[in-house]
Amino acid sequence: MDTERPRIRLRPKADARRIRHGYPWVHLDDVVTDRRTRALAPGDIAVLEDAERAALATVTVNMASRIAARVLDADPEATIDGAWIAARIATAAAHRARLPGGAFHRLIHAEADGLPGVVIDRFGDAAVLQPNAAWADARAEDFADALEGLGIRHVLLNATGRARGAEGLGDGTRWLRGGLEAPVEVSMNGATYLADLTGGQKTGLFYDQRPNHAFVAGLARGARVLDVFSHVGGFGLAALAGGAATALAVDGSAPALDLAARGAELMGRSGDYATRRGDAFDLMTALGEAGERFDVVVADPPAFAPAKPALTAGLRAYERVARLAVPLVAPGGYLTLCSCSHAADLPKFRASCVRGIGRAGRQAQLIHTGFAGPDHPVHPQLAESGYLKALTFRLLD
Amino acid sequence: MDTERPRIRLRPKADARRIRHGYPWVHLDDVVTDRRTRALAPGDIAVLEDAERAALATVTVNMASRIAARVLDADPEATIDGAWIAARIATAAAHRARLPGGAFHRLIHAEADGLPGVVIDRFGDAAVLQPNAAWADARAEDFADALEGLGIRHVLLNATGRARGAEGLGDGTRWLRGGLEAPVEVSMNGATYLADLTGGQKTGLFYDQRPNHAFVAGLARGARVLDVFSHVGGFGLAALAGGAATALAVDGSAPALDLAARGAELMGRSGDYATRRGDAFDLMTALGEAGERFDVVVADPPAFAPAKPALTAGLRAYERVARLAVPLVAPGGYLTLCSCSHAADLPKFRASCVRGIGRAGRQAQLIHTGFAGPDHPVHPQLAESGYLKALTFRLLD
Repeated sequence: MDTERPRIRLRPKADARRIRHGYPWVHLDDVVTDRRTRALAPGDIAVLEDAERAALATVTVNMASRIAARVLDADPEATIDGAWIAARIATAAAHRARLPGGAFHRLIHAEADGLPGVVIDRFGDAAVLQPNAAWADARAEDFADALEGLGIRHVLLNATGRARGAEGLGDGTRWLRGGLEAPVEVSMNGATYLADLTGGQKTGLFYDQRPNHAFVAGLARGARVLDVFSHVGGFGLAALAGGAATALAVDGSAPALDLAARGAELMGRSGDYATRRGDAFDLMTALGEAGERFDVVVADPPAFAPAKPALTAGLRAYERVARLAVPLVAPGGYLTLCSCSHAADLPKFRASCVRGIGRAGRQAQLIHTGFAGPDHPVHPQLAESGYLKALTFRLLD
Repeated sequence: MDTERPRIRLRPKADARRIRHGYPWVHLDDVVTDRRTRALAPGDIAVLEDAERAALATVTVNMASRIAARVLDADPEATIDGAWIAARIATAAAHRARLPGGAFHRLIHAEADGLPGVVIDRFGDAAVLQPNAAWADARAEDFADALEGLGIRHVLLNATGRARGAEGLGDGTRWLRGGLEAPVEVSMNGATYLADLTGGQKTGLFYDQRPNHAFVAGLARGARVLDVFSHVGGFGLAALAGGAATALAVDGSAPALDLAARGAELMGRSGDYATRRGDAFDLMTALGEAGERFDVVVADPPAFAPAKPALTAGLRAYERVARLAVPLVAPGGYLTLCSCSHAADLPKFRASCVRGIGRAGRQAQLIHTGFAGPDHPVHPQLAESGYLKALTFRLLD
């Protein structure tokens, strides 16, 4: 217990009960600000008090952010040290150990795993730590120690997160333990992927689509598959593992397509897997004009509406993806449309897709709505933040 | 083509474009009513016209309903006969043939399968037909013929649907083809269930929870499982098949529990399966007071909020289920809460569950949001009607 720990206090109008019931964020306009609080550095640990000065929780502060404090522990006297971090990671690991996928998963998903701003992806005996908050960046060595305790030998600190700037953090990506040069082989849903951990987002691997990959793969027996915005091969390679006859991957990134093709090679399916590099909208248009048809089409684009200002244009882009993808689907075939946009909620994204399908002049049924997998838990009080949506339609005519 | 077919016309203010884009319902206040339209009988086939008398679609009418017409075919001259019905069923069957589960599934899910008001569940060589609309009831023999064409020998017409009264239909449940006395054995997710087709809803079998059963079963290795509102054993037997150590089923229906216990027997797991009959709220309270703890708890209650007037009370009931279930979950264990209420949408139902968990004083993470399986397609323009929701939480403390 640290009796010197600074204290920040809720204004009388703020809802202290919400914090007591587990809400993890304290908004800046809910706290009393004065010279003392303004002097706190991002990442400082403090005690949150209600308006009557009763201690509520241990928090980490960033008075320059709209979210001035994030709850680390409901115990106002919790010590935030290596043992505390190791305990949080052990709780998270116990859950992942129950899930399929072995030692390949998202191990820590920020607030929902009780570690605000922290993301850790595990790739067997390697892990990528993203400490996107100052409190965690300052304790990166404690995180690395805890990961070593799980038998992880290589720990990369990935410092490319967008939130780091607001936390006053630099961008020095580096190995904290061990080090790997070659891409890591990842087995998921029976497919083999290659993840280039140091190559950044463009050639890393996201685990969040795992259940949606599996759903599409379950429809793909004998199918011709088109995987638009394929990245390192997510849906297409899973479909091959599910028995697809062929898959064509379309993406703008040559390094990603190269890793995808190498994955198909490791699966012994090079002959059934093709890649085409270019603008996805242009390539879909060209495929449609050439009269190409596929039994299963997937489009998993980057976030067109990451935040509110981009929402209108983003929803139009999702509609356009649907409209261009529909003509490529054979009668009775399947179309999966995905969004990883925070700002486009499920009803809005679905409406854009349905509009695009309608404009393309086809009748459809919606057979599946999927989200990120269970290694991407959601904080129950931030459940609207579930960013990933995957809709599978069947085209009837 | 039937030139004598009656015609109904949209009012000028009605959105004809919506119909052209596939919306399947015509609301009563969107159609011109006169002596002629008022004389139409429920189930009559008509041509829908826009305000300029251009033909839009073939519809079935019920001028006594808030939904005066339902689109049967985008072709205004479609003949609604046995061949038309067989073609719709063949299209639906082709989709189900791609799904896991063999010949056990929902074969027709009303509007989404292009057959408004019609539900057909298939149980191997038997099927239960619910023609809950007059147009379909009048063509029950055509449906039976089409099902025979798929190799189905036993066809039960189930006439217990609530919508039948408004369509002027009676309640004569009867075998249209063949006939079965004994309950049917259904294999699903590796578990064995018994479905009593003639025993009505209380002892039938619902396929809609299949993917959610599978998700829970995937968490259940070695677990002690509590299955509240178990019906004929849905979640509990699936959990046993997934490797659970024991399961306790709680339900108010003795015949349902009897079928559940016989399912466990067929699985050779009688010794690991127990049933307790009574009020679920009372039994949860009693188990909590007795200090009983389970690794996996599921509550899949009947619809507490089937329609809007019941919404407030229904949401309170869901909150109460959550509050009573939480103390029964061991630390690090899983709690799955379900709703089949049309009126309680996902955000409302989720908020009730989160409130109940908060009031029970536990911290949780939401790891899964599931809906009905892909043999329960949704009409894209009625997507808000997805009635089934299953939320799986992990309790952290």
